[in-house]
Amino acid sequence: MHELFMRRCFELARQGTGRVSPNPLVGVVIVKNGKIIGEGFHERHGGAHAEPNAFKNATEDVSGATLYTNLEPCCHTKKLTPPCAPLVIEKKIAHVVICNLDPNPLVAGSGAAQLKAAGIQVTTGVLEQEGESLNEIFFHRMRTGRPLVHLKSAATLDGKTALPNGESKWITGPEAREDGHRGRLQYDAVMVGAETLRKDDPALTVRLPGFTPERMPFRVILTGSGKLPMGAQVFKDDFRHRTLVVTDSQTKIDMLPPQQVVRLSTLNPFPFGEFYKKIADFGIHSLWLEGGAALHSLFLQHNQVGRLTLYLSPKIMGEGRALFAHTSSGLADLLQLEGLEVQAMGADLKITAKMETNRRKP
Amino acid sequence: MHELFMRRCFELARQGTGRVSPNPLVGVVIVKNGKIIGEGFHERHGGAHAEPNAFKNATEDVSGATLYTNLEPCCHTKKLTPPCAPLVIEKKIAHVVICNLDPNPLVAGSGAAQLKAAGIQVTTGVLEQEGESLNEIFFHRMRTGRPLVHLKSAATLDGKTALPNGESKWITGPEAREDGHRGRLQYDAVMVGAETLRKDDPALTVRLPGFTPERMPFRVILTGSGKLPMGAQVFKDDFRHRTLVVTDSQTKIDMLPPQQVVRLSTLNPFPFGEFYKKIADFGIHSLWLEGGAALHSLFLQHNQVGRLTLYLSPKIMGEGRALFAHTSSGLADLLQLEGLEVQAMGADLKITAKMETNRRKP
Repeated sequence: MHELFMRRCFELARQGTGRVSPNPLVGVVIVKNGKIIGEGFHERHGGAHAEPNAFKNATEDVSGATLYTNLEPCCHTKKLTPPCAPLVIEKKIAHVVICNLDPNPLVAGSGAAQLKAAGIQVTTGVLEQEGESLNEIFFHRMRTGRPLVHLKSAATLDGKTALPNGESKWITGPEAREDGHRGRLQYDAVMVGAETLRKDDPALTVRLPGFTPERMPFRVILTGSGKLPMGAQVFKDDFRHRTLVVTDSQTKIDMLPPQQVVRLSTLNPFPFGEFYKKIADFGIHSLWLEGGAALHSLFLQHNQVGRLTLYLSPKIMGEGRALFAHTSSGLADLLQLEGLEVQAMGADLKITAKMETNRRKP
Repeated sequence: MHELFMRRCFELARQGTGRVSPNPLVGVVIVKNGKIIGEGFHERHGGAHAEPNAFKNATEDVSGATLYTNLEPCCHTKKLTPPCAPLVIEKKIAHVVICNLDPNPLVAGSGAAQLKAAGIQVTTGVLEQEGESLNEIFFHRMRTGRPLVHLKSAATLDGKTALPNGESKWITGPEAREDGHRGRLQYDAVMVGAETLRKDDPALTVRLPGFTPERMPFRVILTGSGKLPMGAQVFKDDFRHRTLVVTDSQTKIDMLPPQQVVRLSTLNPFPFGEFYKKIADFGIHSLWLEGGAALHSLFLQHNQVGRLTLYLSPKIMGEGRALFAHTSSGLADLLQLEGLEVQAMGADLKITAKMETNRRKP
């Protein structure tokens, strides 16, 4: 029964996708006599947490009830909203069932401890793996202090992204492309290299049937030369204020207001720390990389990619452009993937896996 | 219940793997009062068919029983063994349950018709897809008149088989390699290009824990230059009489007796029809291709590959040698895979799919 209600928490939590960053996705279910009497989720950054929302929506007296939440109720006060653990105590909840403890060092088990001290029964670790996966972006940032960088690409089964002449639209089918849009929605920004902008002029927006996101992810364009097409969609469309250009301290950029240009001290070597810090000022705490090969190779080469998703179409190309262009120093030094998941996506395969981001070169 | 007993037929049939070619794999189960009273399978080419074996092994009187077989009982007489349909009639079987009708034009439903004419109830089409898959090699040859060519390769997830310097052992893990040996066993011959022999000196034998095949698949080496290492395993080991070298009419080959050299009128363009005909004289009616890139590209380029199996390791290489080197004339012309199946094989992924072998270039 715990798992059943926890899965409902996940469902509720997911409804906050694209709106709560950098906060985690949280859903809460209140159960009394085996029946759900209240539900809530964290709906948007700056808004109420899931717990007060669930209490607000409760249809019966919650005293003596069990509260399910995928994340430990917070107890710290250095934030936009009041802490939740005292509220849970005040509402006379008898039992709190938690999926993941909060990795935030300001909370880290002390929310649960506060509840226990008030005589509330606390159960933890229900569907922990699923909860980790739901909030992968949040957990990654809390643990590493860096944004989760998710590299997405599409290729034929033999790892080719385009014909030798560069022709590539579309390698994969509509289901894979739609899934890619669902991916974008989870991240604060979609990043491409200038060459992708010049070649494909992508919109890089989230376009899903019957769904308009409350806020679009930023579009982040990396350019060394500053040669960007003035007429590109990302500089012209309704979301052009959500477009950033990343370049060095001197390159002239005139297609965007200066406040949308992120200037780094240098591009070579690429200062990842400085870059992450500067985009964090825009509220960007996670990155979805969409190409091309040069951008991917830059991030791969420096072990900055935390998750990789490949859509592989059931085709063989033979000669063509390769997925990645970084160099490995030997077979023992290949980038390793972990927790591989494979899923059919229309006629294509979706393969997603974690990458070790802290690995050192031998 | 039909499916249960048919699956048992498949299990029995599979025991003939590597020994019955070019015949199909066939298993038979005789059931009376819901109980199996006899089992048999086609054990080796030239030996008895599955039906007489099952009758021989029956522990009770089979009259009135139901006979399950994954392939329609034969009725033609132009072969090594007596036809089975008359035997089934003689044994007073009441009901015959068949998975696949025989695609052999000499039989093609007439075995079933013969049974029906004798008053036997006949049920067909039980687990038809599984049966097709079990005897894919046989069905392919019957329908196309050509051997099934199965291309097997291993690569990183980004489609690389070796570092730029050629270093490649081992990309995939032991489970994938063992599975590759199971693959070899199903084919009459394992084929490689001369470059693979020079570079890797593979044994190309079937080596499976606790299992010694009754007969090794042939090893077929394609060479244009005749430059082959005299000391290569395939010319020295216990199975050297099962090694063939394929070359043109003139190239000097002195590491094998002349009867083990298959001479084609030319190698360029490669005469696939002549090649298939000449290897058929050795009893080779199916081919397992194991590289390298040049051999694979030759067969891919000419749409000769009927099934492709890739073992993909959960690694990213970046720069390296690509899986295939043929050229596609456009995105609409990529080689298409069908019926993709994905399976975990240790830490690696096994992806196998059919390819259209009759597709014409646009």
